[in-house]
Amino acid sequence: MGLAVPEEVVRVASDIREMRVRGAGRIAKAAATALMVAAERYPGSDAREFREYIRRVAELLLKTRPTAVSLPNAVSYVVGPLLRAPHVGSVEEARRLVVERASSFIRYADEALERIAEIGSRLVRDGDVVLTHCNSLAVVSIIKRAAQRGKRVSVYATETRPLFQGHVTARMLLEAGVDVTLIPDSSVRSLIRRVDKVIVGADAVAANGAVVNKIGTSLIALIAREHGVDFYVATETYKFSPFTLSGEPVVIEERPPTEVVPQEFLDKHPRLRVLNPSFDVTPPGYITGIITEVGVIPPSAALLVLEEIYGREGVREQASVAVDEEA
Amino acid sequence: MGLAVPEEVVRVASDIREMRVRGAGRIAKAAATALMVAAERYPGSDAREFREYIRRVAELLLKTRPTAVSLPNAVSYVVGPLLRAPHVGSVEEARRLVVERASSFIRYADEALERIAEIGSRLVRDGDVVLTHCNSLAVVSIIKRAAQRGKRVSVYATETRPLFQGHVTARMLLEAGVDVTLIPDSSVRSLIRRVDKVIVGADAVAANGAVVNKIGTSLIALIAREHGVDFYVATETYKFSPFTLSGEPVVIEERPPTEVVPQEFLDKHPRLRVLNPSFDVTPPGYITGIITEVGVIPPSAALLVLEEIYGREGVREQASVAVDEEA
Amino acid sequence: MGLAVPEEVVRVASDIREMRVRGAGRIAKAAATALMVAAERYPGSDAREFREYIRRVAELLLKTRPTAVSLPNAVSYVVGPLLRAPHVGSVEEARRLVVERASSFIRYADEALERIAEIGSRLVRDGDVVLTHCNSLAVVSIIKRAAQRGKRVSVYATETRPLFQGHVTARMLLEAGVDVTLIPDSSVRSLIRRVDKVIVGADAVAANGAVVNKIGTSLIALIAREHGVDFYVATETYKFSPFTLSGEPVVIEERPPTEVVPQEFLDKHPRLRVLNPSFDVTPPGYITGIITEVGVIPPSAALLVLEEIYGREGVREQASVAVDEEA
Amino acid sequence: MGLAVPEEVVRVASDIREMRVRGAGRIAKAAATALMVAAERYPGSDAREFREYIRRVAELLLKTRPTAVSLPNAVSYVVGPLLRAPHVGSVEEARRLVVERASSFIRYADEALERIAEIGSRLVRDGDVVLTHCNSLAVVSIIKRAAQRGKRVSVYATETRPLFQGHVTARMLLEAGVDVTLIPDSSVRSLIRRVDKVIVGADAVAANGAVVNKIGTSLIALIAREHGVDFYVATETYKFSPFTLSGEPVVIEERPPTEVVPQEFLDKHPRLRVLNPSFDVTPPGYITGIITEVGVIPPSAALLVLEEIYGREGVREQASVAVDEEA
Amino acid sequence: MGLAVPEEVVRVASDIREMRVRGAGRIAKAAATALMVAAERYPGSDAREFREYIRRVAELLLKTRPTAVSLPNAVSYVVGPLLRAPHVGSVEEARRLVVERASSFIRYADEALERIAEIGSRLVRDGDVVLTHCNSLAVVSIIKRAAQRGKRVSVYATETRPLFQGHVTARMLLEAGVDVTLIPDSSVRSLIRRVDKVIVGADAVAANGAVVNKIGTSLIALIAREHGVDFYVATETYKFSPFTLSGEPVVIEERPPTEVVPQEFLDKHPRLRVLNPSFDVTPPGYITGIITEVGVIPPSAALLVLEEIYGREGVREQASVAVDEEA
Amino acid sequence: MGLAVPEEVVRVASDIREMRVRGAGRIAKAAATALMVAAERYPGSDAREFREYIRRVAELLLKTRPTAVSLPNAVSYVVGPLLRAPHVGSVEEARRLVVERASSFIRYADEALERIAEIGSRLVRDGDVVLTHCNSLAVVSIIKRAAQRGKRVSVYATETRPLFQGHVTARMLLEAGVDVTLIPDSSVRSLIRRVDKVIVGADAVAANGAVVNKIGTSLIALIAREHGVDFYVATETYKFSPFTLSGEPVVIEERPPTEVVPQEFLDKHPRLRVLNPSFDVTPPGYITGIITEVGVIPPSAALLVLEEIYGREGVREQASVAVDEEA
Repeated sequence: MGLAVPEEVVRVASDIREMRVRGAGRIAKAAATALMVAAERYPGSDAREFREYIRRVAELLLKTRPTAVSLPNAVSYVVGPLLRAPHVGSVEEARRLVVERASSFIRYADEALERIAEIGSRLVRDGDVVLTHCNSLAVVSIIKRAAQRGKRVSVYATETRPLFQGHVTARMLLEAGVDVTLIPDSSVRSLIRRVDKVIVGADAVAANGAVVNKIGTSLIALIAREHGVDFYVATETYKFSPFTLSGEPVVIEERPPTEVVPQEFLDKHPRLRVLNPSFDVTPPGYITGIITEVGVIPPSAALLVLEEIYGREGVREQASVAVDEEA
Repeated sequence: MGLAVPEEVVRVASDIREMRVRGAGRIAKAAATALMVAAERYPGSDAREFREYIRRVAELLLKTRPTAVSLPNAVSYVVGPLLRAPHVGSVEEARRLVVERASSFIRYADEALERIAEIGSRLVRDGDVVLTHCNSLAVVSIIKRAAQRGKRVSVYATETRPLFQGHVTARMLLEAGVDVTLIPDSSVRSLIRRVDKVIVGADAVAANGAVVNKIGTSLIALIAREHGVDFYVATETYKFSPFTLSGEPVVIEERPPTEVVPQEFLDKHPRLRVLNPSFDVTPPGYITGIITEVGVIPPSAALLVLEEIYGREGVREQASVAVDEEA
Repeated sequence: MGLAVPEEVVRVASDIREMRVRGAGRIAKAAATALMVAAERYPGSDAREFREYIRRVAELLLKTRPTAVSLPNAVSYVVGPLLRAPHVGSVEEARRLVVERASSFIRYADEALERIAEIGSRLVRDGDVVLTHCNSLAVVSIIKRAAQRGKRVSVYATETRPLFQGHVTARMLLEAGVDVTLIPDSSVRSLIRRVDKVIVGADAVAANGAVVNKIGTSLIALIAREHGVDFYVATETYKFSPFTLSGEPVVIEERPPTEVVPQEFLDKHPRLRVLNPSFDVTPPGYITGIITEVGVIPPSAALLVLEEIYGREGVREQASVAVDEEA
Repeated sequence: MGLAVPEEVVRVASDIREMRVRGAGRIAKAAATALMVAAERYPGSDAREFREYIRRVAELLLKTRPTAVSLPNAVSYVVGPLLRAPHVGSVEEARRLVVERASSFIRYADEALERIAEIGSRLVRDGDVVLTHCNSLAVVSIIKRAAQRGKRVSVYATETRPLFQGHVTARMLLEAGVDVTLIPDSSVRSLIRRVDKVIVGADAVAANGAVVNKIGTSLIALIAREHGVDFYVATETYKFSPFTLSGEPVVIEERPPTEVVPQEFLDKHPRLRVLNPSFDVTPPGYITGIITEVGVIPPSAALLVLEEIYGREGVREQASVAVDEEA
Repeated sequence: MGLAVPEEVVRVASDIREMRVRGAGRIAKAAATALMVAAERYPGSDAREFREYIRRVAELLLKTRPTAVSLPNAVSYVVGPLLRAPHVGSVEEARRLVVERASSFIRYADEALERIAEIGSRLVRDGDVVLTHCNSLAVVSIIKRAAQRGKRVSVYATETRPLFQGHVTARMLLEAGVDVTLIPDSSVRSLIRRVDKVIVGADAVAANGAVVNKIGTSLIALIAREHGVDFYVATETYKFSPFTLSGEPVVIEERPPTEVVPQEFLDKHPRLRVLNPSFDVTPPGYITGIITEVGVIPPSAALLVLEEIYGREGVREQASVAVDEEA
Repeated sequence: MGLAVPEEVVRVASDIREMRVRGAGRIAKAAATALMVAAERYPGSDAREFREYIRRVAELLLKTRPTAVSLPNAVSYVVGPLLRAPHVGSVEEARRLVVERASSFIRYADEALERIAEIGSRLVRDGDVVLTHCNSLAVVSIIKRAAQRGKRVSVYATETRPLFQGHVTARMLLEAGVDVTLIPDSSVRSLIRRVDKVIVGADAVAANGAVVNKIGTSLIALIAREHGVDFYVATETYKFSPFTLSGEPVVIEERPPTEVVPQEFLDKHPRLRVLNPSFDVTPPGYITGIITEVGVIPPSAALLVLEEIYGREGVREQASVAVDEEA
């Protein structure tokens, strides 16, 4: 059965599963850190055993949130080279490989956000009114950077039912001195003519450039297109997903009804059904550009970006895992 | 200055102004009743004085809610013939004219809803999934009638931020034994493929067939068009408005920010602005048909309906009042 | 039970029912003739009995093809004035009323086609390529008239599965010396760039201007809109239907599977289902104009035309028959 | 052959033909005046002869500009009642009829522009940026009225190739103290996001609500629709044309090549062809509303307006003149 | 002149030319086999002569069906490395190169279909109604695989005029126990609301992602887009064509008129023209995804796939052959 | 401070700055030549100093026209390898590197136009009517080549306000014997139905495939899409720009008002503002294909082309220059 997984790694896995660690970026970094720790703590000297041990840790982490995209991307980045290597070498070499990949991932994630802020802030012109939805760190960073650069920018933030993440966005921007107007989700079409551009975040980007993000995003994209308003998505590339390549449709998480109505309402009306999908999918044709740390790319370049990160073979390999598993 | 307005009429006016009487239909009927009462209570015998007295009562009522459409339509229907008549005749004749028009309006309003339920229910096919927004008595009546006729019908009801009128719709339909699924406003695009038709109510219908209704209505219409789903509006014709003919743009009521965020949030962030428009405008090109008591008409027939109700001259006259007043 | 319906009238009813008389125009004229005959043959002298007798004949005719539009329109035109009259007068007066209305309908129908040919032919410019679908006498008349007027015009005729009525259209036009290109229904999008305008017939026109015509019509309309090509419908106004006003959805006739596949194929594959709808519905927004005997009207004027034919009250009355019957 | 047409009337006809009188409004008023003069100068006493004489004057005027719409509309308004009357009465009665109709037309035209200014100015909101094309008196009046009412309004005026009528618009508005930005026709799409609404004039409005106006108008309408910007047309109703009802396609005047290139360029390149169409046709689906003296109507109400002006029979009659003539 | 082409190879070429071998996949595999045979049968020992001999065989095969895409792709894959090699080496080395490439192509083709079935079947959800057109082995495999995986799936199959390949599709699926509804091509728009997704095959995929497939495909794509229904294409990547890169427009094969009308109809109407294009082109913007053996790619990734197969240089080289030949 | 820049190079820089050298192609070639001359004239022997000297010359050239795209692309191609090299080697090696890259760029530019003519001419079919805008050498070459190949082709050329470059296009094509019709910019929508395809040039192509070209181009693209007409752009790939990747929005040059109105008009109306943007941006979704020397690519492949030219790293590096400079 090989060596036990260290306590600390088990705890990180549990934190992700129980959502004590939240947000695509933090999850990805926590997983990379856990793998680094696991590699460092490995006491043995059998390189093949080490590889199996790392594979087990990877699988443990992957199972915590089966539909997240940033998680498998982070894990694959860190352990892929080791698992794919034709022969292993010494434990020291293998350990160094994992540790280096993990550090490199974390550093990359730290720098990516900074770079997105920088690149995205140039798309904001002086005097712009930007509309955003939900609470995206990337979007907030872009707006703040533009404001720091001396551009006058004001923001329309949707309240974002059912969890009101728009309040968080409003608070973050107000504290940075940016003017914010909070609006109900359903008022976007009435107000879109006052908006110069839309910028939202992403939970995942499919290989065809479709963007999975907080429910309501695709409505705003549709309205923006109806009015000829530019619609941008800001996201780190480690949220790009090769899985759609394998024909695996994006699974949209369904959240509890009590986020939408109080429990007593449900108790009183036992036949009432509530649907509360977390995310929706914005088609690539509605997206002007995706602001990433490697540049503002058209949605049609999503596959290119995937290949750039993992290499062409890496993309195919990941996409085919699912195929082979089920076949 | 002529005779005093009876106490009871003053109270009705105050009830409308203070929103103790709510809903376009109830307001219209209350105004018609008030005019009837005023006519009956008039103690004098000078027919010209009676006309002036009735005009004053009408003006009092009209001032209570300056932007509502059903109110001036009801008042105009009741007192128009008297005010427009070339000579007045006796007080008795004039009184009878007002009382008859008021009764006729109230009877008409009562029958219209019944007729809309009947006509609209035929558009619902067995097995249909109908999506609705906010809480419209006309829509609820249509669904209930279809269910009574033995058609299996289920309903997706949006919760309708910020005041959650969707909860009322859900309750009304559940109590009538209709299956209801409650959904956040922003999830409509994700779920539209499961929907067979959309039916919503109206607060006003402009002369060009554009529909003013609860904020978010036009988003749903846009999504329905994107997916080739029929979009119907159910409304009595006394909500059709001749005012847009005079170039008077539709004024959208702006409601208090505390409907959107708690007061303490506003207190903490004094620079936060909140926009909370009550209604939006759905363009006629997005509407399949308007279900009225005179039939299912295309939006392009709205002007025809106006003319049918008030006569061609009546429409022009009403539309031009604003012109002449300001000019 | 009153007097027996004359043999000849019964035979006409049977001919329509068994489709020995086909085509909206011929059906309408046959029904008008039958009513005239019935009126002339009535032997009695009780005017109230005469009215009941005529009502029975009308009902007999109406039952032959319950979904056709031209039939009830013809019957209503002929017998409506009698049935709606407050008092009847003498049998002679009543008889004359029916006979005159019937003659007037037949004359109208004869003249309408001629007028459509004349009006429609002016929309055809010298050198035009016109695409048509199925076999419409109105369209063929327009093309022939344009050619007679010396305009060079050529026609793309779809074969029109499953019954290949396009072959009839091709033959009629070739015999009139017009160049015809026959094409499969599915090739319209490939060839549309060579087409200057589309003209098709109609089986019915709804109150909102939607056109019910041979299956495939709405596809061509969609393609025409995609390419900015004008799409015209040519039809007599007695195919305009007030019934959609009552919320009664248009019922599309489903025809036998053996029109689509041979019986042996069905025998061999008992689980195969075949759908073979006769007609489809083209939305008014896809139609440039409707060429009628009263002019080239926009689809939005369909309701106006209905009112012109039957009078405003007549339209309401007809539309409400269905409502009252079911209610 | 009857009496000679008075010199003064002949001169007016010649002025219209030679374009010494220009602009749809001025032409219409000149024709009405000429008819009034002709009626007054008639020396005879034979009422039937008078009718023939007036018919001849009308025909003389109609031939001067065969494609203008305001001209036949004015003539028909003035002489229609006389020509359609079942019996003529005395010369005095007939003369009075013509003179009264002519005066009434002229008064109507004078008031219509004033009313359009008033009605249209209400659609302009404080702070609006309005884009216009070519030089329309109705549009200029609307903008000036809005400015007089204290609304801050600024205008983007296209230069309007080839004759640069945009310079005239710019001058008129600048002199009224309105801010104007002059732009090349081809820059409209680049600048449309800064525009709140478009308002243009019309040379003719077809029965289906399509608008014939200066070449380039339909491009701007297309761009406005692409960006969800309202597109209004301002025009007197006597530019509404019943002729399209008769299948007569709108004929677009082709103007001389030297408006586009200098003669020497043409001389040097004899094989160069130049196309210089005066007008284009904006489809009704691209038009938000038509601002007329009877109100802001949807394009779908154009036929209704025609009927209101001439009466239902009058519209049919005019439309059928062409049919009968050619048939 | 070099050595003679072996009899067996000549026969294969003839079979392809005379359409005894049909279908893009079978043609491609037959050509690869013929090249393998030719290489094996070469009796000489001069490596340069061998290369010329292989080039001649390749040209013989390429001439059989000049517009097919799978054929030149197969030939280029098999002989490209030999023909492009800077120096040849021994006959044995060259022969091995050709034989290995041919085997590898055949194996690839066999595996690709299996992989498409697997990947495509995941896009099918339990309960889905899938519409397909014509008869595609890839589509049938996907549906059957989904059914085998326990998903309830039913299929709407168009009959596909003029050759009724839809009957073949229906039979194949019925025999596999899948519910099938056969429909006329022209009824797709009427029935699209009952369809969850469309999946069709391809004859060729252009470098810009446009798909060439059986006539009628692009209509269905247009209808799917009008109703927001996903539209997938299933195809092996060896149908991707680099030729469009060279500006060579896709040539659509025109098939005999007797497929559309009986010979006697043509004899009777000698002036009748019949157009019967085999294929149409669906623009990339109408396609949700292309299901290939390398994953579900967006149409915009077609060029990327081409580069992956032949290498960037290979794509350019093939595209430029045509340029150099003609230039 | 290093060595002085040679006189000849300074003069080239000045010629570009003062627009004595005009046109994206000529500017690019002049810059390459200047770098070659600079390298050849370097008298020293210190390789590091040589690199600094070349960097300075490059910067001098880049500053002449800060927004042109062909200029930095040419400079980067010529000096990039030297500036990016990890160590320099001898002066002779470095010099040779620069000279070879410069020659290679010039040769490439010469060949590219020829190749575009060849590739583009194949898209032109016999009998085609091609519409073009402004004056593009690439488009003229394509048309001329197609005509030389024996295809009958005629051209609609817009006059292209404000500088009438359409006259130049007309002249060039007329002299080559091609039929030309000159039209005002605003008449394109009226005439588009006579056009088979649109081909225009480009000033720059963004990484997302958007095309920057003469003002008015995007209007024509919009009209072409409205009518289903193919819209092609012809351009050398050295106009493809990596800068948009860095979030740097495309800056549109604003030209003097006197190009639009005479100075006296401006003098008379000091409050008149004139906007005269040189270019507009056509979104990639409106473009059928981009005709380049490497083939007809879809707009979505623009990023791929950038990577092909500079290598993936080169693209990133250029894009990040701007980021690092500002950050």
